[in-house]
Amino acid sequence: MYFSGVDSRVSIAELDLVGLRRCFHAHAETAFTELWTSVTIAAELRRLGWRVLTGAEAIDLSRAPRLPGPDELSRAAERARAWGADADGLRVVRDGHTAVIAELDGGAPGPSTAVRVDIDALPLDESQDASHAPARDGFASRSPEVMHACGHDGHVAVGLELARRLAGRDFPGRVRLLFQPAEEGGRGARAMLAAGAAEGVDRLYALHFGLGLPVGEVAAGTSGFFANSKLLAAFTGRPSHAAHAPEEGRNALLAAAQAALGLHALPRFGAADTRVNVGVLRAGTAPNIVAADAELRLELRATSGEVCDELERRARAVLNAAGAAHEVGVRIERIGAATTADCDPAAVRAIAAAARSLPAVTRVLDDHRFGASDDATFLMRAVQERGGEATYLVVGASSPAPHHSPGFDIDEACLAIAADVVERAIR
Amino acid sequence: MYFSGVDSRVSIAELDLVGLRRCFHAHAETAFTELWTSVTIAAELRRLGWRVLTGAEAIDLSRAPRLPGPDELSRAAERARAWGADADGLRVVRDGHTAVIAELDGGAPGPSTAVRVDIDALPLDESQDASHAPARDGFASRSPEVMHACGHDGHVAVGLELARRLAGRDFPGRVRLLFQPAEEGGRGARAMLAAGAAEGVDRLYALHFGLGLPVGEVAAGTSGFFANSKLLAAFTGRPSHAAHAPEEGRNALLAAAQAALGLHALPRFGAADTRVNVGVLRAGTAPNIVAADAELRLELRATSGEVCDELERRARAVLNAAGAAHEVGVRIERIGAATTADCDPAAVRAIAAAARSLPAVTRVLDDHRFGASDDATFLMRAVQERGGEATYLVVGASSPAPHHSPGFDIDEACLAIAADVVERAIR
Amino acid sequence: MYFSGVDSRVSIAELDLVGLRRCFHAHAETAFTELWTSVTIAAELRRLGWRVLTGAEAIDLSRAPRLPGPDELSRAAERARAWGADADGLRVVRDGHTAVIAELDGGAPGPSTAVRVDIDALPLDESQDASHAPARDGFASRSPEVMHACGHDGHVAVGLELARRLAGRDFPGRVRLLFQPAEEGGRGARAMLAAGAAEGVDRLYALHFGLGLPVGEVAAGTSGFFANSKLLAAFTGRPSHAAHAPEEGRNALLAAAQAALGLHALPRFGAADTRVNVGVLRAGTAPNIVAADAELRLELRATSGEVCDELERRARAVLNAAGAAHEVGVRIERIGAATTADCDPAAVRAIAAAARSLPAVTRVLDDHRFGASDDATFLMRAVQERGGEATYLVVGASSPAPHHSPGFDIDEACLAIAADVVERAIR
Amino acid sequence: MYFSGVDSRVSIAELDLVGLRRCFHAHAETAFTELWTSVTIAAELRRLGWRVLTGAEAIDLSRAPRLPGPDELSRAAERARAWGADADGLRVVRDGHTAVIAELDGGAPGPSTAVRVDIDALPLDESQDASHAPARDGFASRSPEVMHACGHDGHVAVGLELARRLAGRDFPGRVRLLFQPAEEGGRGARAMLAAGAAEGVDRLYALHFGLGLPVGEVAAGTSGFFANSKLLAAFTGRPSHAAHAPEEGRNALLAAAQAALGLHALPRFGAADTRVNVGVLRAGTAPNIVAADAELRLELRATSGEVCDELERRARAVLNAAGAAHEVGVRIERIGAATTADCDPAAVRAIAAAARSLPAVTRVLDDHRFGASDDATFLMRAVQERGGEATYLVVGASSPAPHHSPGFDIDEACLAIAADVVERAIR
Repeated sequence: MYFSGVDSRVSIAELDLVGLRRCFHAHAETAFTELWTSVTIAAELRRLGWRVLTGAEAIDLSRAPRLPGPDELSRAAERARAWGADADGLRVVRDGHTAVIAELDGGAPGPSTAVRVDIDALPLDESQDASHAPARDGFASRSPEVMHACGHDGHVAVGLELARRLAGRDFPGRVRLLFQPAEEGGRGARAMLAAGAAEGVDRLYALHFGLGLPVGEVAAGTSGFFANSKLLAAFTGRPSHAAHAPEEGRNALLAAAQAALGLHALPRFGAADTRVNVGVLRAGTAPNIVAADAELRLELRATSGEVCDELERRARAVLNAAGAAHEVGVRIERIGAATTADCDPAAVRAIAAAARSLPAVTRVLDDHRFGASDDATFLMRAVQERGGEATYLVVGASSPAPHHSPGFDIDEACLAIAADVVERAIR
Repeated sequence: MYFSGVDSRVSIAELDLVGLRRCFHAHAETAFTELWTSVTIAAELRRLGWRVLTGAEAIDLSRAPRLPGPDELSRAAERARAWGADADGLRVVRDGHTAVIAELDGGAPGPSTAVRVDIDALPLDESQDASHAPARDGFASRSPEVMHACGHDGHVAVGLELARRLAGRDFPGRVRLLFQPAEEGGRGARAMLAAGAAEGVDRLYALHFGLGLPVGEVAAGTSGFFANSKLLAAFTGRPSHAAHAPEEGRNALLAAAQAALGLHALPRFGAADTRVNVGVLRAGTAPNIVAADAELRLELRATSGEVCDELERRARAVLNAAGAAHEVGVRIERIGAATTADCDPAAVRAIAAAARSLPAVTRVLDDHRFGASDDATFLMRAVQERGGEATYLVVGASSPAPHHSPGFDIDEACLAIAADVVERAIR
Repeated sequence: MYFSGVDSRVSIAELDLVGLRRCFHAHAETAFTELWTSVTIAAELRRLGWRVLTGAEAIDLSRAPRLPGPDELSRAAERARAWGADADGLRVVRDGHTAVIAELDGGAPGPSTAVRVDIDALPLDESQDASHAPARDGFASRSPEVMHACGHDGHVAVGLELARRLAGRDFPGRVRLLFQPAEEGGRGARAMLAAGAAEGVDRLYALHFGLGLPVGEVAAGTSGFFANSKLLAAFTGRPSHAAHAPEEGRNALLAAAQAALGLHALPRFGAADTRVNVGVLRAGTAPNIVAADAELRLELRATSGEVCDELERRARAVLNAAGAAHEVGVRIERIGAATTADCDPAAVRAIAAAARSLPAVTRVLDDHRFGASDDATFLMRAVQERGGEATYLVVGASSPAPHHSPGFDIDEACLAIAADVVERAIR
Repeated sequence: MYFSGVDSRVSIAELDLVGLRRCFHAHAETAFTELWTSVTIAAELRRLGWRVLTGAEAIDLSRAPRLPGPDELSRAAERARAWGADADGLRVVRDGHTAVIAELDGGAPGPSTAVRVDIDALPLDESQDASHAPARDGFASRSPEVMHACGHDGHVAVGLELARRLAGRDFPGRVRLLFQPAEEGGRGARAMLAAGAAEGVDRLYALHFGLGLPVGEVAAGTSGFFANSKLLAAFTGRPSHAAHAPEEGRNALLAAAQAALGLHALPRFGAADTRVNVGVLRAGTAPNIVAADAELRLELRATSGEVCDELERRARAVLNAAGAAHEVGVRIERIGAATTADCDPAAVRAIAAAARSLPAVTRVLDDHRFGASDDATFLMRAVQERGGEATYLVVGASSPAPHHSPGFDIDEACLAIAADVVERAIR
């Protein structure tokens, strides 16, 4: 079976680690529409002999808020078909069941180790600048307004590389690879947990590239996770003719605009570092109609779960008050979340030891301050609650531009380092 | 040739005045996408023997700002095809050339009279309430989020009815019917003027239903037009990861929200009545990315052209300052306009006399305060500058809900009144 | 008894009409602190032989909201003493009883005519520009931040001039002069009504200079009064250290700022002309403390009483919502009001006839569009409810700068015109 | 010479450490109006035999922004006189020269040690609650709206206690006591530096109570200082009549309100913790005048000096843009500042050793995260630049309410601990 790689004559099976990354980079898909990505991962894992779980066995979508609508999913399916995804695979994932879990028993007794890699891209237009390697070298995103701007393309490549290296079953214990959709937005991890992703796991390694570290540096543990709450607020007013009778309208656009400013003006906290971002505002239909509908999408973060809760409580007060000021209705829905987590010393030590043994690694840190959110924290907590241990390792990638920006990229030397570190930690 | 009427077995030619109105109501299309509407009008006019101008002969689109994009036009063409528009007709109008001009010489010497009817609908979801006649009687808009909520469906029907009544050429002078697209947004009239719509016109009647008058009342003239300026403002910032480095972003969403509030807070004027409406705001892509792009669509109105200019000057200051506050770029484009105009006494008298002669007319006013904008004012001024006379007549329609709202409707008895008044004024 | 005129060696009794106006201009006092003004008026009226009512006989302060506090009144009393007000007079007025009513019976039967002149100045710094006559000629306000910027100084002068001209009792009927405090803010008229100011009045003339008319023009009647509601909103939050624990604070300053913007963004109304002005905002104590207290003073106006009520209802919603957004308490108090009123044709005719008989009057209008508020409307309505007639006349003054601005002034030729018109209308 | 203590029959000389604190607490005075405080401190120091510098020898006011105006200073002088400050002392300080420097040589060779205590109170109304010890025990602030809500009353008491304990000259080296005005607002330290306060100092101890630590705990060093920039922004518009011609006005109140919201919405920074507070907004004079003047007082803080500079740059953009939006002038002035600083290990060790030797001290920390600003950082940096060492020690005070709030208080057991720690560190 042949998939269209970046060079469409080449199959996935023929691609090396760098090739894999570039191929997934080119086929960027956003949360829960990772159809081509998921089908491609599952097929390669099956080819390698892993036991592969997909569909409802890999993820319980009843626990995932705000799935894409049927239109978006059918457009994504069309695109995946055009990219060569096979029909059988698509049938399983086309309603958003894009998680893939793969398991393999090694040849010797040992612990059960899970490796979590996330697979989704972001709704962002990729840089076409000649200085941007994917654009220069022809593997930039083939979807307009979708881009792997957080390195998950590399995560997928490392996940598949591990699958290849371990395919000989010459390792102690058992390995479970968790290919997670919808990390952006904080929706995939809990839905996979609900399908049993953390059951029986003794140790969890969650992996991330970049985060400010130069290539060659590895942080075996991470602190400073932001707890995260993502909200959707819908304002419902009343339209009217903007000249004849503006007073008959109830202006949802102004309510949303006021809420956006009010949310960004929520106080800083002495007790924790916080973040507020209203990332999306959509309101109204025409200049001569008082806007009757508006929608905000926003997120609140704090380095403490309690402060994040308090921030969300206040954000809801701001949203409701904006509705009250303009006499429009307000509906608020939580559409994503992440929590904080601590890394376990034993897991950190295992990664640190593996990293120190590699010549390509110039510096090993026990801890890196994350300064962002990842719903891997739910997986970490679930493993810890079941008596297991977890760490979140960061592999430096010398990114030339910030995460989530059009010029983000990774130094591809980081790919082998990541695969080596995790492989050694498992072995 | 058969068009699909509301009852698809019936052709346009078989529909009476009320049937025409219902048919055009059901096939609502917004500014410059009135493809089915335009093709249907032109075909019926040709069937009746009028000389029909379409395409570039009817409208000069180089003078129309903000045409719909190719995607929107091709979706509209698909819809028009599905509704039965013939391929030849569509070929002429599918790039937005939706104006139709029809001319006929009567059998006797006399002045050249133009009648202007506008043909576009609004981006609004029509009421599905049982108390809303179009919903109850099955002729509600077949396009989601498009609705004839300003009575232009009735205007088109009256225009075609006049074409039928005058087809016998038994009237003095010459009649020109102007079927104008894109009145909403104030873009069609000037583009038709540029194609010569006002050349040689001695008298212009522009027609509107409703505007607060009950059925049976006719206003032979109108005052209190709002001059109107519609603007599009685009803000261009810089995206960044909302947790890692919010300070690296330049927030276009906040700039747009601040501008929206600031624009609505522009001062009232002692010297004129004014209106401000930001009707559309679109910003950002995802909750975890600082929004790099935002767009506002807004309109400014004043009962004085000078005040409208001053209001626009201040609005630009507000928009530019919002950009400066957030260090994002601002681009402002004027996407529509209307002006003020005065009705000529002779034209008013002609309409008033015609109206008084009709038993169905219970009250005739010489003047009605408009309190809104119509780019017919450009046509009126053009006719007046060329030595002709113009009036804007209002035919009461007992509308149960405000113009531009989902429950807007007309009492269909207004249709015959309007056709009778204009026919008698011409004869 | 000698008062200090502008030239302190001159007594009030020796000043002519222009001299009176300049003297009151120099001694500007704001609402309910018109202590020197009131004492001076009452003394001159008594000297002329009129029956004078002061204190509780002239005004019922229990009906006046927001009197100045004891500190402000005692500072005003100190100033009035320094300006030469006598101690006995001051004792009567020093708690804010600054209204003066004077009555005189003429020598012949006839109607009872009331003339209302207002006496208060505004909290505004007068222009010191050489082009500003009061500054150039040495009669600018002697109080910093207080200025006669609405012509009430002239009104007082005309009231006293009428008192002199009529002192011979050679007129038909009876005349009552109403010297009203606190017109600015809309608090004095209703309090004088409560003390009986409108009882037994057959005809009321309320007088105003300026309002856009040039000197020589007189409008015998006025329309377009704005109904007016003035509110005070107090926000009570919680202070905290702005660096240590900003989240412990509840920010009253931000609530007030948001309310101010939200109030100015209240919609224009199709049904009436409206005004919104937040004129005062005071909040907070120090940059490093989260502001716990804030106060707004604002006014809402509409050319319809119902619309003014609706505007106030919405303003309260905006104020309460601003409090809710910031979790601070809100207290709203109505601190002033005016209503709309219509002038009676007979009263208008009487003034118009008088005006037409004067050579200095170049043009007489039956109606002038006011475009502002005056609580004389309460007096007009009260007289009309008792069967009397009223008009509000405007005497052109060629003001070089807008009312309520630092460069406002009147062409003093208007003074004699006003006195002549009213005197002739009475005779 | 007798001062009025809390009990006015008692002189300062008779008061013990707790009595001193209560006396200064009752006589709270804000920045640069600490007239009674300064006179009282200087007199007591002279009585004890220290060499005392006051006036221009202690502080260079040409380096202090925003001194209080003559009115405020003369009211403060009146109050100080009423509280018993002697006329000679007042003459020196009444123009704001409220710093006091005292020096004494010990009997043995040794380093020159400076101790810095700040002396100013805050513009805040003290709690009258029975649970608030100063209210309950009768030593609450005697000035309305002024309160020692940051513990500087205790700092002064400790400074004088040290002066007493060291008056016998039985210590090594030299001691210089720096009684600094205007720490709040960040204006006093640099002005004292300009007068030479840091010259010749080998070691500096700056002292603060509270900051979240319970009584019994002492932090020998401090980190996490916020760099601080305090700004005053003045908006100058144009007044107009709010009904007649609102469009003639240029609304400074709205500009200030918009700026306040915009400033609080400045982004969080990934690179440093930040704070923004607009603490004061004053605008306008009357509800019926468009507000022509407005003033903001605000502060910006960051745990990095560079980020504080960037924050100030952005704040200026927001302020200027608010002016541009409303077409009002903007003037921005920096009225205070603080910087970041690091404590020197040797100085920390000296304090830690002294603290550990005290039975009343239950816990000694090498470092406490400050989370606020203090312009002592300028003194620390000046000493360090001259080759000396500095630390900022925090003495736990079990404060029942946050700093800068009406219920702030200290457990008076902290006073002796502070005096003991510093005395031992000096000896």
